[in-house]
Amino acid sequence: MNYSSCLKRHFGNSIVYVFFILLIPNSLLAQTDPVFKPISADIIQLSSKVLGEYRKVYIYAPPADTLMPDKRYPVMYILDGDNHFSLVAEYCRYLSRSDVNVVPEMIIVGIPNTNRVRDLTPTHSITDNDGNPDTTSNSRYKSSGGGNIFLQFIGTELIPYIDAHYKTKPFKIFAGHSFGGITTINCLLTRPDMFGAYIAISPSFWWDKGYLLSLAAEKLKNDRVINKMIFYSDAYEGLSDGQSTFHNDLVKFDAIITQRKIPGLDHKYVSYPEDTHMTEPIKAYYDALRFIFRRSDLR
Amino acid sequence: MNYSSCLKRHFGNSIVYVFFILLIPNSLLAQTDPVFKPISADIIQLSSKVLGEYRKVYIYAPPADTLMPDKRYPVMYILDGDNHFSLVAEYCRYLSRSDVNVVPEMIIVGIPNTNRVRDLTPTHSITDNDGNPDTTSNSRYKSSGGGNIFLQFIGTELIPYIDAHYKTKPFKIFAGHSFGGITTINCLLTRPDMFGAYIAISPSFWWDKGYLLSLAAEKLKNDRVINKMIFYSDAYEGLSDGQSTFHNDLVKFDAIITQRKIPGLDHKYVSYPEDTHMTEPIKAYYDALRFIFRRSDLR
Repeated sequence: MNYSSCLKRHFGNSIVYVFFILLIPNSLLAQTDPVFKPISADIIQLSSKVLGEYRKVYIYAPPADTLMPDKRYPVMYILDGDNHFSLVAEYCRYLSRSDVNVVPEMIIVGIPNTNRVRDLTPTHSITDNDGNPDTTSNSRYKSSGGGNIFLQFIGTELIPYIDAHYKTKPFKIFAGHSFGGITTINCLLTRPDMFGAYIAISPSFWWDKGYLLSLAAEKLKNDRVINKMIFYSDAYEGLSDGQSTFHNDLVKFDAIITQRKIPGLDHKYVSYPEDTHMTEPIKAYYDALRFIFRRSDLR
Repeated sequence: MNYSSCLKRHFGNSIVYVFFILLIPNSLLAQTDPVFKPISADIIQLSSKVLGEYRKVYIYAPPADTLMPDKRYPVMYILDGDNHFSLVAEYCRYLSRSDVNVVPEMIIVGIPNTNRVRDLTPTHSITDNDGNPDTTSNSRYKSSGGGNIFLQFIGTELIPYIDAHYKTKPFKIFAGHSFGGITTINCLLTRPDMFGAYIAISPSFWWDKGYLLSLAAEKLKNDRVINKMIFYSDAYEGLSDGQSTFHNDLVKFDAIITQRKIPGLDHKYVSYPEDTHMTEPIKAYYDALRFIFRRSDLR
């Protein structure tokens, strides 16, 4: 049986369109088990008041546990959902198998973009990564600076929706790459209580002349406890005058964190010099999951 | 539209059952692109004369290239298909994207097991990995030793089927983990022309008192050109008396290859001491793909 359906749900003042994909049951495909099961996802369409637009979200949930029907799961929110959602869902499914068992079963929420530059930048700026302003009317960054409103959407609309409709535990991870990386770091600095762990894969610290590095220097002080986890990484990328901008910036960020010895902040920095900006996520999402779930209290 | 179908094809003297899964087109799910696309696979059921049984096989093929309808692709065959097929298909899909572009688009063929011990061991043996024979009638290894017949199935039935029904290039990779690893190495030693590249992730060299290490010492001689590639790896695993059997055996195998300087054999050995036997494939399949496709002539 193949089956698809679409229904409207009312959620607070928002209409939520929920789409299901149910894949063909294995029993119809062959006589013997097991068979290949692709990652399947709910695809929902949230009507966001905060953003004033419909937002599609992908949700992978572990198969029901018949022995523990009330089992609840940590949740991982992933930016640039179209790039990384299915990879991370695949990782979590494999790594939580009983014969692998290094991360718990998790709910994975992928957030694809509508206007990436608007949503994943913390400030308005038209300066590119070489430090040159683009003042033309077609500047690729002209819509930038919506990052804090986007975090408000996640905190006040998306997370409550997921918590209301899925079997969530309180522990939540926020993961992003490149512009997604400055978004997760901006969240840690400005709204640290939204998540329990943050992943920033090659965050674009060059944004707005190093705005977030300055903010980190201001916000991360050793007189304040931050009981959070953060994994950050870079690759061989962004060379300018023979220097890797990404790497140099990550070293500065890491120095702020390690030298100030922020009480409670559990951090890890990994450099992947053999990887590019785009291949790095393959290794970094895995290492980040292993770093976070080395702590048995989070399993 | 959801759609499923099953049809019989006659292939040589064998009946082949072909199952298709067509997923719901994106257009029905939402108005805006892109949306999450899970890995989809053809699931075929081959009636194997060599093995005397039906064999299920999973096949991921890249989406049709409308600009190059005759485009052909390398093929990667993966043992223990239920464990690793969807991960490797996910890797290949992401790593071949135009903005990542470090491996070519590929056809991925996953071979799930019916009788793993029978098919993935090169000799009959009832000795376990501690060197103790299990002479009980329930010995878990009593069916062992079918590896060469299994290679015959792959070479004379599976590969011809895939070549006849998919747009294949001649270049083929053979990948396996654990017992799958000794299967790919046995293939390289006894039927080297079946594949262009071999991946052996923690091969179980302990099998039958080191049978394959002896065979490697006999077959790999520097007076014979082997224009093939091989990637092999180990992890933190299989400790016995404080020694890692897997690691010690891999070091011996690596010594045979490096010291004899086999003409043409392009090889790489990686150790993953922070990984277990079961987490290692996450890193090793990626590194193996990068090793093989660093060669631009294979892209």
